[in-house]
Amino acid sequence: MKLVRFGAQGQEKPGLIDSDGVIRDLSGIVHDIAGDVLTPEGLARIRAANPADLPAAPESVRLGACVARPGNFVAVGLNFADHAAETNNPIPSEPVLFNKAPNCVVGPNDDVMIPRGSTKLDWEVELLIVIGARARYVDEADALKHVAGYAICNDVSERNFQIERGGQWTKGKGNETFGPIGPYLLTADEMPDTSNLAMWLEVNGEKVQNGSTKTMIFGVAHLVSYISQFMVLDPGDLITTGTPPGVGLGMKPPRYLKAGDVMRVGIEGLGVQTQTVVPFKL
Amino acid sequence: MKLVRFGAQGQEKPGLIDSDGVIRDLSGIVHDIAGDVLTPEGLARIRAANPADLPAAPESVRLGACVARPGNFVAVGLNFADHAAETNNPIPSEPVLFNKAPNCVVGPNDDVMIPRGSTKLDWEVELLIVIGARARYVDEADALKHVAGYAICNDVSERNFQIERGGQWTKGKGNETFGPIGPYLLTADEMPDTSNLAMWLEVNGEKVQNGSTKTMIFGVAHLVSYISQFMVLDPGDLITTGTPPGVGLGMKPPRYLKAGDVMRVGIEGLGVQTQTVVPFKL
Repeated sequence: MKLVRFGAQGQEKPGLIDSDGVIRDLSGIVHDIAGDVLTPEGLARIRAANPADLPAAPESVRLGACVARPGNFVAVGLNFADHAAETNNPIPSEPVLFNKAPNCVVGPNDDVMIPRGSTKLDWEVELLIVIGARARYVDEADALKHVAGYAICNDVSERNFQIERGGQWTKGKGNETFGPIGPYLLTADEMPDTSNLAMWLEVNGEKVQNGSTKTMIFGVAHLVSYISQFMVLDPGDLITTGTPPGVGLGMKPPRYLKAGDVMRVGIEGLGVQTQTVVPFKL
Repeated sequence: MKLVRFGAQGQEKPGLIDSDGVIRDLSGIVHDIAGDVLTPEGLARIRAANPADLPAAPESVRLGACVARPGNFVAVGLNFADHAAETNNPIPSEPVLFNKAPNCVVGPNDDVMIPRGSTKLDWEVELLIVIGARARYVDEADALKHVAGYAICNDVSERNFQIERGGQWTKGKGNETFGPIGPYLLTADEMPDTSNLAMWLEVNGEKVQNGSTKTMIFGVAHLVSYISQFMVLDPGDLITTGTPPGVGLGMKPPRYLKAGDVMRVGIEGLGVQTQTVVPFKL
């Protein structure tokens, strides 16, 4: 299934995309695409519905983040060997983890705002894991049972805040609008293999990232298992899994986003996002 | 007011401690101590109640975390000059930020579990800020208007996971049970000055931390303002503000917690927590 949230910001309803591409309103069946709705039991309730019986959403309706604000938004750094190299970092021997603020999640086509004081706004196409069952010290062999599905995440980053403002990366990762998620959550049953998905990102029509999950250092099952050794993952939590080469920081000279730039972000089987970069506003 | 959550884990009710020290049940007035209940409007609803009219909670009832699972749990590192020195870190020129997993929040007297594979479990008494109004690029002069109140946080830390497992600190900060919060949230009107509060932590009756907020490098208003430049803070979000000297990592030789150890944790005006360290269990 392709699950979405649609409607005005803060008033999104749950929906699914039917086989004709029409968004069907799930708000009579589940309260949101979040938390317990993402468990096997919750997804079974959605599966039991006949899409043709559900109201169609208005055409061209805004898409919200395909998962509501998560309980935790974990991110994996430097998970592609070539990306580690382009940012002058060693290839990690185990996953590097950091956090994005859960409330930075926005719709896949919402504007991305340049934070106040930003000088180095950058992009990162990433495969997003959505947790569907509580994960606590899970083995790698069992890890995929804890995954509800997948989506695209643009792990928008401010490199000055992330790297040059002291200490940890979190200052440049969770800023307002830094988490476009979607367009849809593809349930895991429809994506049995995540090990060879094309992934790409364009800025103003120019393809700047053009990679594949096949060069990920640590794959989906390993990451879920690994993270669950350090924290409990709950249904609706998000893990964004790292980016292939081609970010602005790695260009010579570095290239950063400016107001008016348009990002298009795609992963094979998971659709396309489009964001316009807009100036800071209070 | 002193606000609490009481009852069995996962079934906590909101309450307040009346002038006789009796917990009064607020569940007829507010749904929880969380989110919008912490805004000025939410707190006004609680203030309008007459505690004597509210049901008393059972004596010796368990206390939960005084704030329900937050949307974000931000932590400040190395915010006491002497603590930075004892951990061989430079004194930061601006606040160092990291994240604790929001679901690591537990009651003030709940057991603290040694994670699987842990070798260096440590303690940190800290002043916790609870956000009461959305904070987005707020000035330091306005910052305290965004604070609902204060509590104690034991920023439980696993130093091997935090420092020796690659990359960022988050692996050793958000583990299950690593966020004892409470016993109560003291609303900000009853704590107009946080700049000179005694704070201490005992392990098995021995005082290992004995400090004061007066040696904090960055104070409450500065921290709220600063963090709001990098992420949006929402009502119910938590900021734990750093620890004074005396952690196990800083001892010569270092000293870490073992099963059966008992921590008592206090801050002037904010009560006392007591946690027993217990072995890992699946």
